[in-house]
Amino acid sequence: MNSYSDYQKYMSKIADLHYSIAVLSWDKEVYLPKDGAAHRSQQVATLSGMAHELFTKDSFGKQMLALQKDKTLSFKERRNVELTLKDYEKATKFEESFVIKKSKAISETYHSWLKAREERDWSIFAESLDKLVVIKKEESDRYAFGNHPYDSLLDLYEPAMTVEKLETIFSDVKQQLHPLIQHIKHADQIENDFLFQEFDTDEQWEYGLKILRKMGYDFDKGRQDISAHPFTTSFSPLDVRVTTRVKSNDFPMMLWSCIHEGGHALYEQGLPVSEYGLPSGAAISLGMHESQSRLWENNVGRSKAYWNYHYPLMQQAFKKQMGDISFDKFYKAINRIESNLIRTESDELHYHFHVLIRYEIERDLLAGNITTNELKENWNDRYEQYLGVRPENDVEGILQDIHWSHGSFGYFPTYSLGSFYAAQFYDQATSDIPQLEDQISQGNTDQLLTWLRDSIHQYGHQFEADEICEKITGSGLQLDSFVNYATTKFSDVYEF
Amino acid sequence: MNSYSDYQKYMSKIADLHYSIAVLSWDKEVYLPKDGAAHRSQQVATLSGMAHELFTKDSFGKQMLALQKDKTLSFKERRNVELTLKDYEKATKFEESFVIKKSKAISETYHSWLKAREERDWSIFAESLDKLVVIKKEESDRYAFGNHPYDSLLDLYEPAMTVEKLETIFSDVKQQLHPLIQHIKHADQIENDFLFQEFDTDEQWEYGLKILRKMGYDFDKGRQDISAHPFTTSFSPLDVRVTTRVKSNDFPMMLWSCIHEGGHALYEQGLPVSEYGLPSGAAISLGMHESQSRLWENNVGRSKAYWNYHYPLMQQAFKKQMGDISFDKFYKAINRIESNLIRTESDELHYHFHVLIRYEIERDLLAGNITTNELKENWNDRYEQYLGVRPENDVEGILQDIHWSHGSFGYFPTYSLGSFYAAQFYDQATSDIPQLEDQISQGNTDQLLTWLRDSIHQYGHQFEADEICEKITGSGLQLDSFVNYATTKFSDVYEF
Repeated sequence: MNSYSDYQKYMSKIADLHYSIAVLSWDKEVYLPKDGAAHRSQQVATLSGMAHELFTKDSFGKQMLALQKDKTLSFKERRNVELTLKDYEKATKFEESFVIKKSKAISETYHSWLKAREERDWSIFAESLDKLVVIKKEESDRYAFGNHPYDSLLDLYEPAMTVEKLETIFSDVKQQLHPLIQHIKHADQIENDFLFQEFDTDEQWEYGLKILRKMGYDFDKGRQDISAHPFTTSFSPLDVRVTTRVKSNDFPMMLWSCIHEGGHALYEQGLPVSEYGLPSGAAISLGMHESQSRLWENNVGRSKAYWNYHYPLMQQAFKKQMGDISFDKFYKAINRIESNLIRTESDELHYHFHVLIRYEIERDLLAGNITTNELKENWNDRYEQYLGVRPENDVEGILQDIHWSHGSFGYFPTYSLGSFYAAQFYDQATSDIPQLEDQISQGNTDQLLTWLRDSIHQYGHQFEADEICEKITGSGLQLDSFVNYATTKFSDVYEF
Repeated sequence: MNSYSDYQKYMSKIADLHYSIAVLSWDKEVYLPKDGAAHRSQQVATLSGMAHELFTKDSFGKQMLALQKDKTLSFKERRNVELTLKDYEKATKFEESFVIKKSKAISETYHSWLKAREERDWSIFAESLDKLVVIKKEESDRYAFGNHPYDSLLDLYEPAMTVEKLETIFSDVKQQLHPLIQHIKHADQIENDFLFQEFDTDEQWEYGLKILRKMGYDFDKGRQDISAHPFTTSFSPLDVRVTTRVKSNDFPMMLWSCIHEGGHALYEQGLPVSEYGLPSGAAISLGMHESQSRLWENNVGRSKAYWNYHYPLMQQAFKKQMGDISFDKFYKAINRIESNLIRTESDELHYHFHVLIRYEIERDLLAGNITTNELKENWNDRYEQYLGVRPENDVEGILQDIHWSHGSFGYFPTYSLGSFYAAQFYDQATSDIPQLEDQISQGNTDQLLTWLRDSIHQYGHQFEADEICEKITGSGLQLDSFVNYATTKFSDVYEF
């Protein structure tokens, strides 16, 4: 392999494997019969092994190094080569024995997490987690990215993100968002029971499909199915699938999961097909992906403008349940916020304190400032401090997330980054398209989607998150947009 | 790789690729969004290429040859090694340029077949088919199996089958089955309109699932979905999937496709899990597979005994349509036979003349006794001769099947072989289990399934079709059982 086109062909072959794994995994979540699980895992493992083998070939690394020196490459081509080399170096950094040690530790930790939840006992989890943390520290040392031991792990999910940058963001969260949730003490002043009446599941499903179509999700290039936990997956920009779940007494869950996953899917459907298999054909980061889903879910999907168009239609579709509910009552209900113990059940404001807690714990754990022994008390104390609630048991406390059991340290911050980027992008979109709110009020989000496609999607991973943020908005990530957004919305909803 | 267990591991890896391809292909038929097709084909091609590359490695061939000399292998192990070597030799027989030439010709022929159907003009297809036949002849010459040029191609689908054996079978078809269809001239004396009333599609679907479950199809190890053409596919014996299609005015199509695919699926679910990826874990041949589907579809699924149990239940489920139809009337309707032009719409008796025609044409074509120029007239003449009908246009004539456009010569005979094996096996089962008909009359097919599992499924491909037939019934394939079965049934139905 010597030329860029050979590189592209080779990457396309590896992508074929990765996307095939994605098909196998999608099927596993939505349609796999009970007894098929073991062989399916084996098939995925074989394909993953083959993809890894192709990607970590010595000859590939050498030829990439040669290609990097090619002066005739365009900006995009050079960027692809650089990012591929970065991934190559990560992938080849660890000898097989370390990879096996880590994967064994993860498997053990995951099973002890399951057991700990079953027996509602953190201590069962703590011991194997402690061993995994040692391995993650070694991993971080050897990646040796950034100045803080946590930086290397952050970089796995959010390239170029560092503790230094996150400190700024999360200190703003504490200083600027905390006063806001202090204002809103009595969530129960807002009634939302009517959202949890019985809604026919087939009608919910049909409604969800309509909402997706209206957003611009292209059903010629994707489909929606049911799974236990909603997710988006892609087999190419021309086949991007979403899932949702439907419960008769939880219409909001179905609805906003459709909009959220729809936002992810619009990003994937907007990536350039011609860049299949290359960084320039892939999403930038988890945080950037989450910015797309959160923008649609919250900035659009919980706005007055959006429901100005959609609410009358919803009332028609669900006359029995919503016919007598005023717009104002509905709008407040869907923006009701309340402190609680469970991250995944949290609202768009309190959510960031759930993330903050996890961020601080991960950061301190990696730096060696706390030990796994202290985690539970630490967790509970921080919940009391930031959210004013204290878990009564470990399942609704420190055992609630799967992430650590998988060794995924550095993942949580991307959730918050997503919302903050979303607010910043949405601000900019509103300023670039002065008539945007009017358009949305009339059920038209086409220009917004075009703006997202032009500003973000079309580039794939040609820029890092902060770079593209700077390119679009004139500055890197800041919390002001989110603070303004939240203050404006919740002072209106809660009338303070 | 030196030991049998290394061989097994290597085969398991290749199987992981093949089963992954099967998942991708299943999804393509049932759920793929419109625009996803091109990348899906590319992904399948990449995985196929990798499987081929692994399987045709020189080192693999050499080590297989060494393993073949290992005196400590069991019968099953030796058999696996032999069959794998046979496949290896086939797979390595052709240099890349031939493979590419053939695949280009197939692609061209397939597109000209589509165009020919669109324009209802055989001549569009004839020219590219002619080129493909030349390539198939070359393929046959180089495989060099058997005494007749057609033998090598037969062996691809029905290992060890030859023209010599087929001549015996099909001359019996002509001599013994032809008089039978001559007896039955006036199909319209049997009324069957009531089968084609409107049946609610959801109720049909539920009924089909019940029928599958009752046969012993295990939904923990499979599922049913909808596709344009019903098929069975397997991702391991623990995940064997079937599809059907449902039209409101064609209840029989849905019903017998469920039973037919269910028969295929029971075979796959019955293969030994421990032999994953090995010949001993795979079906014997297409004909043998078809024997399982046809046995359930016809010998069981169109029998008096079967409907003795199921018909009252069907009448309950579809009271409006079937409540007033007597058992006798129903039984005759589902066994009504009639000469027609289209193979896939043919009944279980005339079907074999459709196959006979294709067999004779393929045989003569490969032997050079007819040319593609003569095919259309030849086809039409044979239809008139054997079935008493003459196509009025090419679409209902020689353009009706996809097989030749894919270069699949040698495939058609397996359809008939399936029915003939089925009759022979069913005869034997009835003699081994004297109470079988009583059991089926009471809705119990468990012992039949156990018999099939014990006699056939458990062995995988340890024996060839004729060998296992001999092992079970004491003789190789013969037509007597089918002739008896057909004569008994149709003399009863048509009262002659």
